[in-house]
Amino acid sequence: MSGNTFGKLFTVTTFGESHGLALGAVVDGCPPGLELTEADLQRDLNRRKPGTSRYTTQRREDDEVKILSGVFEGKTTGTAIGLLIENTDQRSKDYSKIKDRFRPMHADYTYAHKYGVRDYRGGGRSSARETAMRVAAGAIAKKYLRQRCGIEVRGYLSQLGPIAIEKVDWDVVETNPFFCPDESKIESMEGFMQQLRKDGDSIGARLTIVANNVPPGLGEPVFDRLDAELAHALMGINAVKGVEIGAGFDAVVARGSEHRDEITPQGFKSNNAGGVLGGISSGQDIVASIALKPTSSILVPGETIDVDGNPVDVITTGRHDPCVGIRAVPIAEAMVALVLMDHFLRHRGQNADVQVATPVVPGATPDSAR
Amino acid sequence: MSGNTFGKLFTVTTFGESHGLALGAVVDGCPPGLELTEADLQRDLNRRKPGTSRYTTQRREDDEVKILSGVFEGKTTGTAIGLLIENTDQRSKDYSKIKDRFRPMHADYTYAHKYGVRDYRGGGRSSARETAMRVAAGAIAKKYLRQRCGIEVRGYLSQLGPIAIEKVDWDVVETNPFFCPDESKIESMEGFMQQLRKDGDSIGARLTIVANNVPPGLGEPVFDRLDAELAHALMGINAVKGVEIGAGFDAVVARGSEHRDEITPQGFKSNNAGGVLGGISSGQDIVASIALKPTSSILVPGETIDVDGNPVDVITTGRHDPCVGIRAVPIAEAMVALVLMDHFLRHRGQNADVQVATPVVPGATPDSAR
Amino acid sequence: MSGNTFGKLFTVTTFGESHGLALGAVVDGCPPGLELTEADLQRDLNRRKPGTSRYTTQRREDDEVKILSGVFEGKTTGTAIGLLIENTDQRSKDYSKIKDRFRPMHADYTYAHKYGVRDYRGGGRSSARETAMRVAAGAIAKKYLRQRCGIEVRGYLSQLGPIAIEKVDWDVVETNPFFCPDESKIESMEGFMQQLRKDGDSIGARLTIVANNVPPGLGEPVFDRLDAELAHALMGINAVKGVEIGAGFDAVVARGSEHRDEITPQGFKSNNAGGVLGGISSGQDIVASIALKPTSSILVPGETIDVDGNPVDVITTGRHDPCVGIRAVPIAEAMVALVLMDHFLRHRGQNADVQVATPVVPGATPDSAR
Amino acid sequence: MSGNTFGKLFTVTTFGESHGLALGAVVDGCPPGLELTEADLQRDLNRRKPGTSRYTTQRREDDEVKILSGVFEGKTTGTAIGLLIENTDQRSKDYSKIKDRFRPMHADYTYAHKYGVRDYRGGGRSSARETAMRVAAGAIAKKYLRQRCGIEVRGYLSQLGPIAIEKVDWDVVETNPFFCPDESKIESMEGFMQQLRKDGDSIGARLTIVANNVPPGLGEPVFDRLDAELAHALMGINAVKGVEIGAGFDAVVARGSEHRDEITPQGFKSNNAGGVLGGISSGQDIVASIALKPTSSILVPGETIDVDGNPVDVITTGRHDPCVGIRAVPIAEAMVALVLMDHFLRHRGQNADVQVATPVVPGATPDSAR
Repeated sequence: MSGNTFGKLFTVTTFGESHGLALGAVVDGCPPGLELTEADLQRDLNRRKPGTSRYTTQRREDDEVKILSGVFEGKTTGTAIGLLIENTDQRSKDYSKIKDRFRPMHADYTYAHKYGVRDYRGGGRSSARETAMRVAAGAIAKKYLRQRCGIEVRGYLSQLGPIAIEKVDWDVVETNPFFCPDESKIESMEGFMQQLRKDGDSIGARLTIVANNVPPGLGEPVFDRLDAELAHALMGINAVKGVEIGAGFDAVVARGSEHRDEITPQGFKSNNAGGVLGGISSGQDIVASIALKPTSSILVPGETIDVDGNPVDVITTGRHDPCVGIRAVPIAEAMVALVLMDHFLRHRGQNADVQVATPVVPGATPDSAR
Repeated sequence: MSGNTFGKLFTVTTFGESHGLALGAVVDGCPPGLELTEADLQRDLNRRKPGTSRYTTQRREDDEVKILSGVFEGKTTGTAIGLLIENTDQRSKDYSKIKDRFRPMHADYTYAHKYGVRDYRGGGRSSARETAMRVAAGAIAKKYLRQRCGIEVRGYLSQLGPIAIEKVDWDVVETNPFFCPDESKIESMEGFMQQLRKDGDSIGARLTIVANNVPPGLGEPVFDRLDAELAHALMGINAVKGVEIGAGFDAVVARGSEHRDEITPQGFKSNNAGGVLGGISSGQDIVASIALKPTSSILVPGETIDVDGNPVDVITTGRHDPCVGIRAVPIAEAMVALVLMDHFLRHRGQNADVQVATPVVPGATPDSAR
Repeated sequence: MSGNTFGKLFTVTTFGESHGLALGAVVDGCPPGLELTEADLQRDLNRRKPGTSRYTTQRREDDEVKILSGVFEGKTTGTAIGLLIENTDQRSKDYSKIKDRFRPMHADYTYAHKYGVRDYRGGGRSSARETAMRVAAGAIAKKYLRQRCGIEVRGYLSQLGPIAIEKVDWDVVETNPFFCPDESKIESMEGFMQQLRKDGDSIGARLTIVANNVPPGLGEPVFDRLDAELAHALMGINAVKGVEIGAGFDAVVARGSEHRDEITPQGFKSNNAGGVLGGISSGQDIVASIALKPTSSILVPGETIDVDGNPVDVITTGRHDPCVGIRAVPIAEAMVALVLMDHFLRHRGQNADVQVATPVVPGATPDSAR
Repeated sequence: MSGNTFGKLFTVTTFGESHGLALGAVVDGCPPGLELTEADLQRDLNRRKPGTSRYTTQRREDDEVKILSGVFEGKTTGTAIGLLIENTDQRSKDYSKIKDRFRPMHADYTYAHKYGVRDYRGGGRSSARETAMRVAAGAIAKKYLRQRCGIEVRGYLSQLGPIAIEKVDWDVVETNPFFCPDESKIESMEGFMQQLRKDGDSIGARLTIVANNVPPGLGEPVFDRLDAELAHALMGINAVKGVEIGAGFDAVVARGSEHRDEITPQGFKSNNAGGVLGGISSGQDIVASIALKPTSSILVPGETIDVDGNPVDVITTGRHDPCVGIRAVPIAEAMVALVLMDHFLRHRGQNADVQVATPVVPGATPDSAR
């Protein structure tokens, strides 16, 4: 096991099940001196929070985060930051119907195989509820990156099922429940989601994350490449089945003469690389896209087996997102921020910009001769 | 830096530049008792080796690997396995023309920004030459996985530029220079590549890797998921811009009712998950696909800058692959094998199946009271 | 930073300051199926807890631990175990006197140099209060080791200042406030401590930890040797200045002919090795001893400087242990248990003994041909 | 297994057996721009090399190291540095006598238990021969530390069996075969060793390592403390049974009022802490001492068992050091340097002082809207 820690210098370790007492995280490696309050984390937690629109699950989760350590007199101290979110709404009964049957395409089948136990309460550890802690930790990274070197990590919904966006207007993203950056697509998305809910079905989505002002030089060849660790971070989000950097799969049909990003003193002429060359940031925008599958928790009956291997039907009547991709935007932003933060510290050092006022006292040389 | 090690329990650490004295690797964590000879590694190295067909670079690389340690009397001892390949063909002069100018879409630009130095000799550490060591290390993992629990890791070219395969016949894969599994596509691929060479251009490709007989239970939620680490491993291969698990980006337009892999006592009805649920192997085939960009080293002139920032033209006259994707099949197989090997050991233990004949001698209890 | 995680497969990540809101830990990698309740952890926490005798600080710390995740229906699930202890007694005013002056031999001087900030509240993160979480995590390891393969990890006070024990009677250890295993020494220890308190001074101590029934084979040469990781674990405890395995420093004056532990079919004739040969457990008892320095928080005035570098006197009137070594026994036991647990899992696998009842369903082979 | 890598940012991975084809290492994480030649490594390798005096084994090992990668035009490039030493003198026949019997106090017993195989050729991987690579890697760290911030890491023999030094004169250390810093003790050490050789016996030793000019702030609480990682590094050296930082075990009998290192504006009044407070360097000299056991490979017959468990006598007639401690000075220096290097990079960043001349080209913003 021991797969609950992410990062090398800026590490995040999380715990908690969807229906346990609480979710928590330890954020380790944050440089000292960063002004940090719970409000800094709450903003992104609220963006991820369910029940904010009719297009997401109506399950109520307050997701109020508490900072338990690592901050003193309003600033980070350089020591481990403990975070906690207590679970409030836990309606386990919702899940009693599926207590003894596996949901197709759901992790409870593989958890049962791996651990020999099964926490049927809303997926337990495999629930997307766990990602709340990634968002909280990512918010710390986002704030540091923004303040320390103007790096901005933002994301949007680039495709909802069949509906693909045609333009990116950052001012639009936060004005609609879909994180859609294209004003002209919002209405059709609303219509599509209403029909989907009537059908009791779910749909996939594509998200795109962009990081501006990333300095060149981040990423450690050959295995800890920036793009490789972004892929690790993004593929590790629940329901993600594909990751692209820059042109991604469009590169398959591209010719070198058209795909290469030519360079002029005035700037790169394109960004098919998505800001990464040889695993190292180039100074261009980091651009990553991900594919999220439709949730398997739907009202349409399906075939499965029960814990004894007998064939049974399954219907999930719990409160679920018809499109888990929508709420994944803040999660994906957080994961990208965690990777950039870790590589920034690996590159520039954890204490590179720490101001120390303490006087240095000469050593007692005689004693070294022991 | 220190990004040259991959894996947690089964680790591979590599070194070497395209035009240095040698390439090497340390494979650490291989269980004892595995029969291993250089021939086991050479087979895959030859599959990757350039100059074997007119569709790859004519650069000669013998890639003869030596096992320097970790094997005694024909079997692994459980200690670190040292591997070495001496570089023979190093024609640096080929690269003198681009000594002082950055190739568009090439790592030399970012290496210069990260390290402040520039090894212009064929890309130095950023050259795909480095991947020879991944293939050698992967061959050890492949042999262990095959012998220990019948896991078979194989790959094929699923698309060459515009030409996509329509069927997979494993018997065909090794019979043609493209690793193409579809007999009916080979001729058109040959024609396409010949025209491409005439144009002095390059093309992208799509590869698919399949692992059979993977037991359920491999993968460590929440961050070290099997699919996340596969994405890390595959996106870390030179020129890869996209990674898919199972249905991948097709999931974006899919509905839950059609996408979910329904389960019956007779078996799963589909494998859109690609063998991974909640980051843990399900027992289905692991299926991963990757997109490789066209190489930027082409004969078509392009705009770039020199090391002083002046605008210049660039043409790469070195001996390069018009489609780097072709030779990447053994590399991708190796990376998938390394991930599966690592997770197999994390799950089952490094010495779970070691036979020990040595008699256990009772301890000297009086001495413990010290 | 990011130094708050210990272990490789069985990892413990802690957070919390002596006067913050709470202390916490994430224990990751515990195999599923272990029966675990808060009482299992509380026992060792109470052994470490201050204020239980007149020979330790009178500071009140309830140290009531809560298990927040990773346990379902009374058994571990294999997922991350979240632990929390809320701070109750925080009398910060005790420390106001030393708010602006460095205590000689205390970490606040180096923390100020490293982080540029200073949490003067009882040492903040550098306080031994942090070790409560090590004890809680260690209790989980101890229970697993005991149940899984009969390994018992126990410790005792082998020397209190000038008073060295002469015999080890395990039945005596828990009957006195010193963890002293030698009945005949308890009275003199009491007298010594009373005089020490009168003097307002502190004293060093030596502890010995013994692990019985450790199977041969634990430890990973060449750098992750069992003895090396024990040294890491034990030297990392507050106030520890020396670590010995087996004969330790007595080996300096020993001859090979007398020091070597000869072997007979009936058993080893001695255990100068302390149960470790070549970094691997031999099957003999693991024996480690540590030296703890006297606390620097005493009533005897001493010279130091203030935060501006001016010479000042310092007296620590807070409630401190005259001998921090005494309460360190459960901490040292915990650290030894954490190391053994980690190496046991590395050797035997995390899920080696997991019982899985779930039926395995055949894969959908056609789909792998994608 | 996978215990053959040391360090977090500056990592060293080694391979090789005493009688294999070669020893090797990969040094990863060395900042670019450091002037480095094989001569820089050879100096320390020669200090460790056997056969240089009549007081060490007469086994001939040329230990000529080759740098295979990571250095271009005389300077490090920031990529992995590959090191290789080919084995020349391998006289396996020396060991045929003990082929089937375990040497008391020797690793071959535990290796057999762990791996189920036994490389009887001079200890295979457990041979101190492996430490040659630590010395080579350590030499790189030493050079960087010296040039980058004037840190000097040096060691000496502080006790040979019963003969303890009384003064430290650094100018004397390299003038005698014992690394003894006390002119007045050399003659008695020579006499002692001659008698020991006559007896066919071996003896223990104590070494002390000192690092000057270490800046305050190195070390990552709470688990990756500088002293904890020094203990890990030093206890991991063959034959080491004890590690002390500063006063070490003398702290057991010390009172706080005498032990604490008082601080004045003119400097610390003592260095009982050995340069580390709370796991962080204080700016005082880092002082560490280690105890090395006498080798078990002696001419005095001893009891043991053979591989079938039968009682047998054992005599080791191979060419062995009567005091392995002597040659361990350069090894211990190397391990201390590796720890300091790693923590320096963690603290200050890997590329903090890299000079980059390459012009930064503006990004192609339109492309980020994909």
